[in-house]
Amino acid sequence: MNDIIISIDLGGTRIRAARFNTHLHILERTETLTLAHEGQAAVLERIKGLVREVMPADGSKVLGIGISAPGPLNPQTGVIVAPPNLNGWHNVPLGGILREAFDLPVYVGNDANVAALAEYLRGAAKGNYRHIVYVTHSTGIGSGIITEGKLLLGRDGLAAEVGHIPLVFDQGRISTLENEAAGPDMAAQAVKRIQAGETSAIVDLVDGDLSRVTGSIVGHAAQQGDPLALEIVRRSGMLLGLGIVTLLHLFNPEIVIVGGGVSTLGDLIFTPMKEAIERYAHDPAYYQDLVITHPTLGEDVSLVGAAALVLTQGGGMDITAAAQKLAL
Amino acid sequence: MNDIIISIDLGGTRIRAARFNTHLHILERTETLTLAHEGQAAVLERIKGLVREVMPADGSKVLGIGISAPGPLNPQTGVIVAPPNLNGWHNVPLGGILREAFDLPVYVGNDANVAALAEYLRGAAKGNYRHIVYVTHSTGIGSGIITEGKLLLGRDGLAAEVGHIPLVFDQGRISTLENEAAGPDMAAQAVKRIQAGETSAIVDLVDGDLSRVTGSIVGHAAQQGDPLALEIVRRSGMLLGLGIVTLLHLFNPEIVIVGGGVSTLGDLIFTPMKEAIERYAHDPAYYQDLVITHPTLGEDVSLVGAAALVLTQGGGMDITAAAQKLAL
Repeated sequence: MNDIIISIDLGGTRIRAARFNTHLHILERTETLTLAHEGQAAVLERIKGLVREVMPADGSKVLGIGISAPGPLNPQTGVIVAPPNLNGWHNVPLGGILREAFDLPVYVGNDANVAALAEYLRGAAKGNYRHIVYVTHSTGIGSGIITEGKLLLGRDGLAAEVGHIPLVFDQGRISTLENEAAGPDMAAQAVKRIQAGETSAIVDLVDGDLSRVTGSIVGHAAQQGDPLALEIVRRSGMLLGLGIVTLLHLFNPEIVIVGGGVSTLGDLIFTPMKEAIERYAHDPAYYQDLVITHPTLGEDVSLVGAAALVLTQGGGMDITAAAQKLAL
Repeated sequence: MNDIIISIDLGGTRIRAARFNTHLHILERTETLTLAHEGQAAVLERIKGLVREVMPADGSKVLGIGISAPGPLNPQTGVIVAPPNLNGWHNVPLGGILREAFDLPVYVGNDANVAALAEYLRGAAKGNYRHIVYVTHSTGIGSGIITEGKLLLGRDGLAAEVGHIPLVFDQGRISTLENEAAGPDMAAQAVKRIQAGETSAIVDLVDGDLSRVTGSIVGHAAQQGDPLALEIVRRSGMLLGLGIVTLLHLFNPEIVIVGGGVSTLGDLIFTPMKEAIERYAHDPAYYQDLVITHPTLGEDVSLVGAAALVLTQGGGMDITAAAQKLAL
């Protein structure tokens, strides 16, 4: 019998759970809808139920439970602070609740940090990398950063929040990367310009109902060659590139992995992003040997990363060493 | 006999050298002028001469030589890339040259990183801190960052260069923190506005010769209450605050130490800087328990930091553990 890790991916729509071996392979999985509107107690019961489903029945030793959850959260205390997509959750001690229910070590990590761990151990950054930046470009912009083989957490686990860095200064107005470049801002820009009289294929894609415009719709229009949408996507990619320039100067990584829904637009985002990197980096040394790539793990990324939290005791251990030991 | 560390502070004006014990106390010191115009070979000979002067005569064991040098440099290879204030130096393998001359381990660090180490072990951040940001605001803007008790270096030692992060300004113009807020930019702004017709006490301070305006002169005028100078200093402090907001979101530190010539203006810089932090941080959790302070080591900071490089083998070891062992 081999040791087992239990992994949970708590999302706004779905809760997934899996049983892993210590090589980070999934042995069994299950999932259910989150149904957050039914209240926090009901969701917590569903989580416990899924954990029971994937617990080993053969008496294998369980090393611990790892949870990927929406931030902000404190990985030291396991407290979920106030996730925007889990309505009504505020300072929920999820780590402590599960620790008490199952009498096991529990490690909680935010989704971007956990994704960085997963791509490091099993995905795009597998190999000899020690300095890794993972950026997710979606309805928000987040990051997970690994320096010298360790997950960067900071004092309270609030580090690596690239979306909140201040960036734009038009007429003295200051905004953040996320508020200027993420999906909802792309949608808002499109709506504003259409309302001001510009024409765009976006109007037809939402049957004339501008309240239905999302970042995803703007991306779809850009893929069809709509000039307005292309301009908005290009600006988003350029600003993302500027955010990455900041990360390059602060972390000097070997690899940057760009994931999230907006990134699936591929070159429409990557081309302006790379142009910004080459134009605004202080020195070619920051990007000439840099690998810039997409994530490879797909939907399982959070489950793999949450399991990795257990292996690395919350990301606090040197992960390269752990990976070598486990021949991951 | 106790073990000894040799420390060198290579600056554009002076070279300092000292003999330290392993508690990071100076036992003996010496210095000479750099005279960079005499050429690289002459400067290298002067460095070797100073090392010989501070070598122990009693047969004590020397653990190694630590060097603080102007960046950019590669701490892994000990190569000084192209320091602006050491004219004609380009890819000088300073570490290797001294290693060969003295047959000792040699560790090279850039001045901001070394200052962070020094303030951590002997200065403003002495204590139980594990996450430290040191920012220097002078003719340039640089930083040294300690995460989880280790100096942040990145792949090639090019990490922690906060001065080069891009910020977007009016009309899509993109510039860097350093180019908008450091001393030379403060001087350039003052000159431009005076030439455009504004009045300022700065004109009298330079006897009407605007080519003599420096960041330091602008600071002096601000201390005298000159409205133009006060406005420029205030903008510099605000932009520095925005840079620190970026560092808070990426590193979630316990303490931020702000040093360098411009920072000696005290509240003239610190007040707008703190206002920007409180206004633009995403959440009070980033600053409510944050210590923001001045450095305490003064002129010896680089010598202490370079000696600390030897103790921590280039900053790569956990420094808290080293400090505890040495009862620093």
